[in-house]
Amino acid sequence: MIVILKDRPDEEQLAGLVSWLKDQGISVHPTVGSSQTILGLVGDTSRIDMDLISALDIVSSVKRVQEPYKNANRKFHPDDTVIRVGSARFGGGAFALIAGPSVVESEEQILSVAEAVKEAGADLLKGLAFKPRSSPYAFQGLGIEGIRLLLLAREKTGLPLVSEIHDASQLPLFEEIDVLMVGARNMQNYALLRALGKTDKPVILKRGFSNTYEEWLMSAEYIMAGGNGKVILCERGIRTFEPSAAGTLDVACVPVLKELTHLPVIIDPSSAAGSYTFVGSLARAGAAAGADGAMLGVHNDPMRALCDGPVSLTPERFRKTVKSLRDIHKLIMEE
Amino acid sequence: MIVILKDRPDEEQLAGLVSWLKDQGISVHPTVGSSQTILGLVGDTSRIDMDLISALDIVSSVKRVQEPYKNANRKFHPDDTVIRVGSARFGGGAFALIAGPSVVESEEQILSVAEAVKEAGADLLKGLAFKPRSSPYAFQGLGIEGIRLLLLAREKTGLPLVSEIHDASQLPLFEEIDVLMVGARNMQNYALLRALGKTDKPVILKRGFSNTYEEWLMSAEYIMAGGNGKVILCERGIRTFEPSAAGTLDVACVPVLKELTHLPVIIDPSSAAGSYTFVGSLARAGAAAGADGAMLGVHNDPMRALCDGPVSLTPERFRKTVKSLRDIHKLIMEE
Amino acid sequence: MIVILKDRPDEEQLAGLVSWLKDQGISVHPTVGSSQTILGLVGDTSRIDMDLISALDIVSSVKRVQEPYKNANRKFHPDDTVIRVGSARFGGGAFALIAGPSVVESEEQILSVAEAVKEAGADLLKGLAFKPRSSPYAFQGLGIEGIRLLLLAREKTGLPLVSEIHDASQLPLFEEIDVLMVGARNMQNYALLRALGKTDKPVILKRGFSNTYEEWLMSAEYIMAGGNGKVILCERGIRTFEPSAAGTLDVACVPVLKELTHLPVIIDPSSAAGSYTFVGSLARAGAAAGADGAMLGVHNDPMRALCDGPVSLTPERFRKTVKSLRDIHKLIMEE
Amino acid sequence: MIVILKDRPDEEQLAGLVSWLKDQGISVHPTVGSSQTILGLVGDTSRIDMDLISALDIVSSVKRVQEPYKNANRKFHPDDTVIRVGSARFGGGAFALIAGPSVVESEEQILSVAEAVKEAGADLLKGLAFKPRSSPYAFQGLGIEGIRLLLLAREKTGLPLVSEIHDASQLPLFEEIDVLMVGARNMQNYALLRALGKTDKPVILKRGFSNTYEEWLMSAEYIMAGGNGKVILCERGIRTFEPSAAGTLDVACVPVLKELTHLPVIIDPSSAAGSYTFVGSLARAGAAAGADGAMLGVHNDPMRALCDGPVSLTPERFRKTVKSLRDIHKLIMEE
Repeated sequence: MIVILKDRPDEEQLAGLVSWLKDQGISVHPTVGSSQTILGLVGDTSRIDMDLISALDIVSSVKRVQEPYKNANRKFHPDDTVIRVGSARFGGGAFALIAGPSVVESEEQILSVAEAVKEAGADLLKGLAFKPRSSPYAFQGLGIEGIRLLLLAREKTGLPLVSEIHDASQLPLFEEIDVLMVGARNMQNYALLRALGKTDKPVILKRGFSNTYEEWLMSAEYIMAGGNGKVILCERGIRTFEPSAAGTLDVACVPVLKELTHLPVIIDPSSAAGSYTFVGSLARAGAAAGADGAMLGVHNDPMRALCDGPVSLTPERFRKTVKSLRDIHKLIMEE
Repeated sequence: MIVILKDRPDEEQLAGLVSWLKDQGISVHPTVGSSQTILGLVGDTSRIDMDLISALDIVSSVKRVQEPYKNANRKFHPDDTVIRVGSARFGGGAFALIAGPSVVESEEQILSVAEAVKEAGADLLKGLAFKPRSSPYAFQGLGIEGIRLLLLAREKTGLPLVSEIHDASQLPLFEEIDVLMVGARNMQNYALLRALGKTDKPVILKRGFSNTYEEWLMSAEYIMAGGNGKVILCERGIRTFEPSAAGTLDVACVPVLKELTHLPVIIDPSSAAGSYTFVGSLARAGAAAGADGAMLGVHNDPMRALCDGPVSLTPERFRKTVKSLRDIHKLIMEE
Repeated sequence: MIVILKDRPDEEQLAGLVSWLKDQGISVHPTVGSSQTILGLVGDTSRIDMDLISALDIVSSVKRVQEPYKNANRKFHPDDTVIRVGSARFGGGAFALIAGPSVVESEEQILSVAEAVKEAGADLLKGLAFKPRSSPYAFQGLGIEGIRLLLLAREKTGLPLVSEIHDASQLPLFEEIDVLMVGARNMQNYALLRALGKTDKPVILKRGFSNTYEEWLMSAEYIMAGGNGKVILCERGIRTFEPSAAGTLDVACVPVLKELTHLPVIIDPSSAAGSYTFVGSLARAGAAAGADGAMLGVHNDPMRALCDGPVSLTPERFRKTVKSLRDIHKLIMEE
Repeated sequence: MIVILKDRPDEEQLAGLVSWLKDQGISVHPTVGSSQTILGLVGDTSRIDMDLISALDIVSSVKRVQEPYKNANRKFHPDDTVIRVGSARFGGGAFALIAGPSVVESEEQILSVAEAVKEAGADLLKGLAFKPRSSPYAFQGLGIEGIRLLLLAREKTGLPLVSEIHDASQLPLFEEIDVLMVGARNMQNYALLRALGKTDKPVILKRGFSNTYEEWLMSAEYIMAGGNGKVILCERGIRTFEPSAAGTLDVACVPVLKELTHLPVIIDPSSAAGSYTFVGSLARAGAAAGADGAMLGVHNDPMRALCDGPVSLTPERFRKTVKSLRDIHKLIMEE
């Protein structure tokens, strides 16, 4: 941590700061310039609150040199975390494919999609029983009945299940679900993250619309600090100034995060694309950037989907996309 | 609602769409151009899901003409909503001042601040018992003990209390708190919003870092749809590209929202300013833009505050700011 | 174009608007709802200024249905534009590789890089003689001497040249340069765009840091309206809230633009990556998304580069990247 | 400047870096931690290119401690710069009012507006002869004839003139114009900035849609480095994710810039407001935040304005706004 002092700092306050830091086990190395003095702090600065120091009258600014996350930090855990769900693998060179409708609508729909995506090569089945909608008047999912239909689909196809949880109080309903997903709007719902940290289920943590890499990793840290290290990061498009986009898929997050963390990183192009016609290209871009997997919206009849129809692939389009994703992943791995 | 069709739409599909819309009680008025056909839909289109129509092969895009919120919409409720808390009033030409520390730290701290802000002219006392932090390792507030200290401060000063709730399961702990606050990170935590809709307490709904006016009003709509119309909107700075800012205070939201909605709009300059030196200017800007109130961070000893010290006003600075805010508000009201 | 009227519009004003529109050759189709009236306008609305209509007291808002660009619009020119420079081809299924240093520094440097990138498979050589810097005190390039060195490099290697022009007055200096490049900061420098529209040289038009697709295509339209149809669009990363990124490469622009326009689209991952370690992944993502080419920063000695050293590839790293880009492009084309 | 080294840096490279820095007159102060080494650099680091150091293999990152601008920096010039134009004053506690139409349309229009704004208390008259438009097909202003009409308006009213210049080659046409304005799209048109640095006319430098404070001040530095210190900074709204806004007026820039620089800062609410109904509130917010002036769009007949009609004030609305701006400014100055 680096503390940049204001010009001509009050000497008594400065001595007070230095002595307080030493009490915390931090050693202080000053660099005195003609117009500026900088303090280099050495020791376990993760315990020091930057706010406390910034508030001092003699301090101009404080810069952190080390990342504030530890469990998620690749520096302390150089090897890739590999998370296994059924026969699927997230991390360590594999490419995991999650597919399914945005929302579970009916037995016929979920079984039809489940069988189609299984045949096309999906590794996990996704479907929401509880769907967060920006309007209180829109269809919010089938609820518990949706969970029951998902379990039925797993029984028929053997595909492990992924579904989104919104509140710690829902945990009992999700007992049979294999992978819990935290949506973008809940990425900083710390009550929920803390509760998930006490489970032993893999968690897919979607990036908030406007959250930085550091905030995202700090949310992963919330789950990991509770004892659950099985966190999968999922990029789903960020909010930018571009009005024509549902979200701008930040594929650069893949190589950047792989340097910062050992956790697997997957992409969700369906949420970011405004139209199914762009989903394939974005998925391929993610795979080429080195993602550990992808999550794709598939519907047996997109024109009648109750939600996200415009960005859903038909089973046939999904099959073609799977092939090119596997090919690109293989090519990337060989190089 | 307006539906823009693709060139040369399939006639059978088009007939299907028109007949389906008629079944929903919507009448359809086509405008046929040489290269484009537009359908104007008339009737209660708030029940029509845009996604369902966008998904059709014959449809190029769908544009909503009416706002998707009803309870919050000024068109249907032209008069200002006025929310009374103790002797304070939000809306209808008043200017309500909320002040207090970021977090309740100790009995001495909260009583000292409460008395100081009361004397300086604050209408309500704010303080967090549960503080959401981006790091799981940072100080998270005193919890239940913090609530107890707030009640003590109310007993001593008579100031009504404002505190932040993070999860529906916390509602019993907040039974005695006068005004519940929803933080920026929870603006789209629909489980929480729905629970607040069933209470009869005023709710301060902070805008999410990157949420549009429409999303914000839709979150208000969630609370109002449950039966609780006492929603106060609070702007706390949005996320932009500017790296030096904790947030960019969007003062324009004040006049824009006052046109769109009848709900009161207040501003929180302390969250947006990176330093206490800017808080006064931003608060004045908000008052001059026509805000119905302000929420200001005040601490008896900012340099020792456990949280947000750099942006906290001392009681003395707060007193000066209050005077200029009242003066500006009076001037605006007279013109 | 769609005009949404305010409630209960003044009838005289409305009649005036309708009659004025008819005089412009536009026919007007009203859709009258209980609370809103919409006018659908049919005819060549590209000649109608939206601002003029929005300004009317009776008008709530105006929405454009057709794109405001014509020459660049795929609707009117369904076939890909193919631009040939030497043996390279932009558009029509080819993948063109531009490589070179950020800035021409010396004869030794540019010749060394030119030979290395040629051998590795580059199609064009890039190098700036005039370098825009945010600081007036930073190195701004060799100027005319830089142009001379580029010509020398072309003589030695046969690679066509790409260099950035900043002002119409520089055109004579660029007479021998094969492809003119407009930098992100000049994307809306209309005086420059207009001047380029009168040349017959291919122009690489970089996207501004924060410009929408429509603004980008309107800038292309400026060049094309002058008679020069040889415009190549180049995405170089957009500005977002993420502080760790030099820019967020918007790969989604590739499939979206290919639907909107017939012009070739290439990507420049070196400007967007904060470090050379991410350049390869981003370039592969762009190729997988369907880009028509890429522009890569290559330096013989990045640690001693006068500019953009941190994001420059060594010739060896460039060679490896070229191979994977060609492989991915081939794979994409076959599917 | 602070250099953060990677773990276990190569000792030879490190010695090379230290010796190279010493040759530049910089002394180096290392802080060695268990997992990280930091170098504090002391001396005139403004001559050191951060890029050169970042590119080294042993360097993790480089952080600048001092601002890269000098002429514009308040640290080196503590007193406000005051710029006088006719009887108007920018800076030093005054509030300068610039008003006029977006574009000069006709003799009748500009004379009518000029007389009206003069009577209402404007200090300078604004009007564009050359108007940058995002479409090459839109009205671009009257050109030289517009300049002639502006001069006529000055003759009749005595108001000094403000008009926008787009290219250094236009300088001779602007010889008689009192204040030159650089539009948002040209904020980083360095060829233009450099040319303006060689004139002795006051320059209003609008902030680019998405430019940071530092970039803005570096553009001011370009003008000042050429010898022209008369730069007035003008905020006109930044680009954010909010789709309903033409721009989000960043009023916080006023107090922040006043701390960073001694140059005057004014605001242009007309460009940021999407509708004239919001212009007054935004102008008042700017004045309350401490701005040194405002620029307001005024048109004698907004419904027939050729450009920006929807955001133009009528002379009557302008008169009311002037009164409240003067009142707020006075109130702010007294406190």
